[in-house]
Amino acid sequence: MINITLPDGSVKEFAKGISPMDVALSISEGLARNVISASFNGTTIETTTPLTCDGSLILYTWNNEEGKKAFWHSTSHVMAQVIEEIYPNAKLTIGPAINNGFYYDVDFGEQKITEADFKRIEDRVLEISREKHEFKMRAATKTEALELYKDNEFKTELIQNLEDGTITFCDHSTFTDLCRGGHIPNTGIIKAMKILSVAGAYWRGNEKNKQLTRVYGISFPKQKELTEHLHLLEEAKKRDHRKLGKELDLFHFSQRVGQGLPLWLPKGAALRDRLEQFLKKAQKKAGYEQVITPHIGQKELYVTSGHYAKYGADSFQPINTPADGEEFLLKPMNCPHHCEIYNARPWSYKDLPKRYAEFGTVYRYEQSGELHGLTRVRGFTQDDAHIFCTPDQLDEEFKNVIDLVLYVFGSLGFENFTAQVSVRDLETPEKYIGNIENWEKAEQAIINAAKDKGLNYVIESGEAAFYGPKLDFMVKDALGRSWQLGTIQVDYNLPERFELTYKGSDNELHRPVMIHRAPFGSMERFIAILLEHTAGNFPIWLMPEQAIILSLSEKYENYAQKVFSLLENHEIRAQIDNRNETIGKKIREAETQKYPFMLIIGEDEEKNGTISVRKHGDDGKSNQTMTIDAFADLVQDEINKTLKQF
Amino acid sequence: MINITLPDGSVKEFAKGISPMDVALSISEGLARNVISASFNGTTIETTTPLTCDGSLILYTWNNEEGKKAFWHSTSHVMAQVIEEIYPNAKLTIGPAINNGFYYDVDFGEQKITEADFKRIEDRVLEISREKHEFKMRAATKTEALELYKDNEFKTELIQNLEDGTITFCDHSTFTDLCRGGHIPNTGIIKAMKILSVAGAYWRGNEKNKQLTRVYGISFPKQKELTEHLHLLEEAKKRDHRKLGKELDLFHFSQRVGQGLPLWLPKGAALRDRLEQFLKKAQKKAGYEQVITPHIGQKELYVTSGHYAKYGADSFQPINTPADGEEFLLKPMNCPHHCEIYNARPWSYKDLPKRYAEFGTVYRYEQSGELHGLTRVRGFTQDDAHIFCTPDQLDEEFKNVIDLVLYVFGSLGFENFTAQVSVRDLETPEKYIGNIENWEKAEQAIINAAKDKGLNYVIESGEAAFYGPKLDFMVKDALGRSWQLGTIQVDYNLPERFELTYKGSDNELHRPVMIHRAPFGSMERFIAILLEHTAGNFPIWLMPEQAIILSLSEKYENYAQKVFSLLENHEIRAQIDNRNETIGKKIREAETQKYPFMLIIGEDEEKNGTISVRKHGDDGKSNQTMTIDAFADLVQDEINKTLKQF
Repeated sequence: MINITLPDGSVKEFAKGISPMDVALSISEGLARNVISASFNGTTIETTTPLTCDGSLILYTWNNEEGKKAFWHSTSHVMAQVIEEIYPNAKLTIGPAINNGFYYDVDFGEQKITEADFKRIEDRVLEISREKHEFKMRAATKTEALELYKDNEFKTELIQNLEDGTITFCDHSTFTDLCRGGHIPNTGIIKAMKILSVAGAYWRGNEKNKQLTRVYGISFPKQKELTEHLHLLEEAKKRDHRKLGKELDLFHFSQRVGQGLPLWLPKGAALRDRLEQFLKKAQKKAGYEQVITPHIGQKELYVTSGHYAKYGADSFQPINTPADGEEFLLKPMNCPHHCEIYNARPWSYKDLPKRYAEFGTVYRYEQSGELHGLTRVRGFTQDDAHIFCTPDQLDEEFKNVIDLVLYVFGSLGFENFTAQVSVRDLETPEKYIGNIENWEKAEQAIINAAKDKGLNYVIESGEAAFYGPKLDFMVKDALGRSWQLGTIQVDYNLPERFELTYKGSDNELHRPVMIHRAPFGSMERFIAILLEHTAGNFPIWLMPEQAIILSLSEKYENYAQKVFSLLENHEIRAQIDNRNETIGKKIREAETQKYPFMLIIGEDEEKNGTISVRKHGDDGKSNQTMTIDAFADLVQDEINKTLKQF
Repeated sequence: MINITLPDGSVKEFAKGISPMDVALSISEGLARNVISASFNGTTIETTTPLTCDGSLILYTWNNEEGKKAFWHSTSHVMAQVIEEIYPNAKLTIGPAINNGFYYDVDFGEQKITEADFKRIEDRVLEISREKHEFKMRAATKTEALELYKDNEFKTELIQNLEDGTITFCDHSTFTDLCRGGHIPNTGIIKAMKILSVAGAYWRGNEKNKQLTRVYGISFPKQKELTEHLHLLEEAKKRDHRKLGKELDLFHFSQRVGQGLPLWLPKGAALRDRLEQFLKKAQKKAGYEQVITPHIGQKELYVTSGHYAKYGADSFQPINTPADGEEFLLKPMNCPHHCEIYNARPWSYKDLPKRYAEFGTVYRYEQSGELHGLTRVRGFTQDDAHIFCTPDQLDEEFKNVIDLVLYVFGSLGFENFTAQVSVRDLETPEKYIGNIENWEKAEQAIINAAKDKGLNYVIESGEAAFYGPKLDFMVKDALGRSWQLGTIQVDYNLPERFELTYKGSDNELHRPVMIHRAPFGSMERFIAILLEHTAGNFPIWLMPEQAIILSLSEKYENYAQKVFSLLENHEIRAQIDNRNETIGKKIREAETQKYPFMLIIGEDEEKNGTISVRKHGDDGKSNQTMTIDAFADLVQDEINKTLKQF
């Protein structure tokens, strides 16, 4: 008999050699129907693998990441089988599951796979799947393996690097592949499959090697799920912030300036400024003070903060000076500078909390391959602030920060989010700095605050930073994708390293606690996510231009100017399109530019002092003619829907 | 006979051996009375030196810099004479004139000079001066010279480095000094003299040498001028922006962050932000668009712009990356980035001018010895903009920029300024790039604009940059000191180097012209000058806080809060001082903090819903009790005095 520990901590006794699927059956038939993969003592196994010793077993279904991985990995076997059928000269190499699906790298030799072939492959994969072939692992000797792949130099290379006695094959239907395992019970549950794309990929990722063809695919247990996924991909493509950023003239990357260093074009800069002003206003009410600090600091500053020891080698390298022998670093974060501002004078407990805020641009080196639009850049502006408070003030300060973060999310239409409270791993106290009492206070403060504010939160043990616990917000966008936005962190480390003090009511010097926080995270990343979330249809208060005046012909120029001035008096941001173009063309372009309102003017409007208002996305049948005042009220109503007072 | 050319170009014939003083006499007796120094063929001589060949003669009076130099240098001889009298063991070294006065470096040996001695020295200097001793130059052999100074190792060292036959002494009264010449006719015109300070100075500026005592002095032909000068020094000290910056909590330098890298404290950041918003608003009206660009760029960017070849070696050195082998530079200016923004898309002549503005922070290396408060820093934010226009638009664009600059100066109380138009040297066309026609157009555009705007301007030939002509504004502050603020430059170079184009009405591609301009120059330098100009009493629209509410005791806290809210409704920025301190102390501190208005509240005010208004600098006798509304009107009236609409 062996003892099997299940994820809920319960231990059950089973006969030696029992399979995960049988364990599932012993729990419930429903579970057994859904189990598609398993891991034993941390290693992925088959659902049929006999368990021969005591250990921890996890059973996975489609709803687990691990289950999906097994599902997709198994589908890649079937796809490989079909590729072999259709392209007899193709040489298979490797075919793992990835985050959203799987791929197989294939050397098609003289042949070529084209989009025209996709359907045929997909149909055949489903045909084979319906035949419910079991995936069966078996051991093979190195000799056997080399013999099977004697015409495939890629598999041969893989096998040569394996130790004899550790080599396994997986069989299903008529197909055999060199494989470490981790499959679903049989092909029958693969109900939908799609080849997404093909791309070039060097063998083993090395550009000196032969270029193979990477065939990307995805599969699902239900046709409906595939349809939804393809729709999501389509939507995501339309909402790609890089595409929208170009269409809306928001930002630009120049090879000459450097990759990962965005240039903000006028409309993008205005958008960013509006977001900054919005947050500044709320922060002012919340008692923050703006500061401004340089973008470099002496290397010594980061040695003091500990950042240099930790990140120095992987960062932009130090900046030397032609004389004086000084060394500077591009600042990777604003906190050391803010600590030095705090240190500019002595403080009493009566002065605290001090809340220093800065839209601080920082620079962090990322390898060029990792750069992606505005979400992974080398220079970005954090909506940073550091709160210096007494330990007793931590609780309230933390709650205030949550209020601010929730206000920001609400005003920008992110309604769907969860919070993660990251606390210490109690079993490894040596990993954390600061005294236990403060840690307990801080963790409790965060949990209380999360509870108090009615957040939907999870506590993750061991996920705290070494310098303090934190709270992160995960936000779902309009397509249901999760993004990490907004972070609030407690820090006992920097006050120590920078020897920050305040005089307490006991007249003794004490260390303040620091809170790092950034509701947006960074302006670049936030705007990218906001673009993908809204597809560029920002809340109207944020639109760089809220309306465009479209004249029916150039002769209404004067009236267009008059309408523009009146809108300006109402603080409505507008643009005039008075070109000698058809109104149809003007409307189409205004639609692309996402103007919330198109204000069409012609003879009637000029005569009556009105405008004909067409909303973005409308077909023009419900245009309303109204006065400028009435329009201003309409815009204000729209604004009030999202933008509240903090 | 010899021919003497005078500065007005006239040539006169004189007998060989005539002295400059005699030449002056031949022109007018009045001139001769005022002449105190002269230069012949570019070399400073005595007014008594015989002229023995043809050449150009300039006669200097007290009103010339050169005249002042001779005056001060001569006074340093008299001071040295007195020092020798009073401290017989003192060893004299060198004693030149400097910008504002003169100094003499002295080795006082065992003795010490203290402030208590100053008066005695000054009195004796004036006593000797009144005796009208002539300064007489005479040649000496090296042997004679070494003999005279055999006990003075410093003069000995100087003499040893001179060639025999070139050594001269200057005698006056009983005193002789090793001297190259350049004196006033006699001591009689020195009517006022003051020792300003003493400081340590190494012999020959080398810290390995002996430390000497540098005695700083200044002298004038009238007592009144000395009094005025001392008053100016006193005022300048009080207005030193480094002192005011500390008192007003505006900025701070941290050794850990690095010298020359200001940290803007909350009040300073608010001040800066207010200035930026003020200019942004005017710029928006003037058709500028804000952009945002990174603080680094690939080295290649500055190779393209030509800056790397010109300044690379003396700048912050390139930033290496841990991988990819890229090299970046801290940006020393924003123009290359703005060129790349222009290059992000094609333009038609109909789209121009494009006016890109950015409060762009740039970094330039300065040796640590050159750093000075906010006026010489290593990182500063330019109120930069680049206008890209067609050559035909240059004229109007230039005028518009002048309007903007004048508006900025006027709103900030700089009333007194001159303009310098820097044009080509027509004799060295090879020094300039761009075609002659464009240069003529541009120079004419600047001169026309200056004339048109009624500027008080001078044209300086040969002072243009190699890439185009420019207009600089010299502003006089409240103490009459001159500062260079605001520059407008025309550039034909960068459009060429960055291959900027627009499609003309002829459907061909053309190069736009660029205008660089910055009304403030940099935020750091401008705020420094503004501080020294206003002594911190900024125009009220700019004050970080316009009023402070001073409660007579803590029990008026609620009313103080109410007044604060009412002021906020009127957009008046205020602060509350509700500490348990005497009203006298609160007023004194509010005076130091330069609050324009102190609003005193007590029982009467709370009862009547009023405030007692005391203005900054008043003695409290003219305090006025009024309602908040009346006070708001008062503030608005004050604002309207300086801040107009653009």
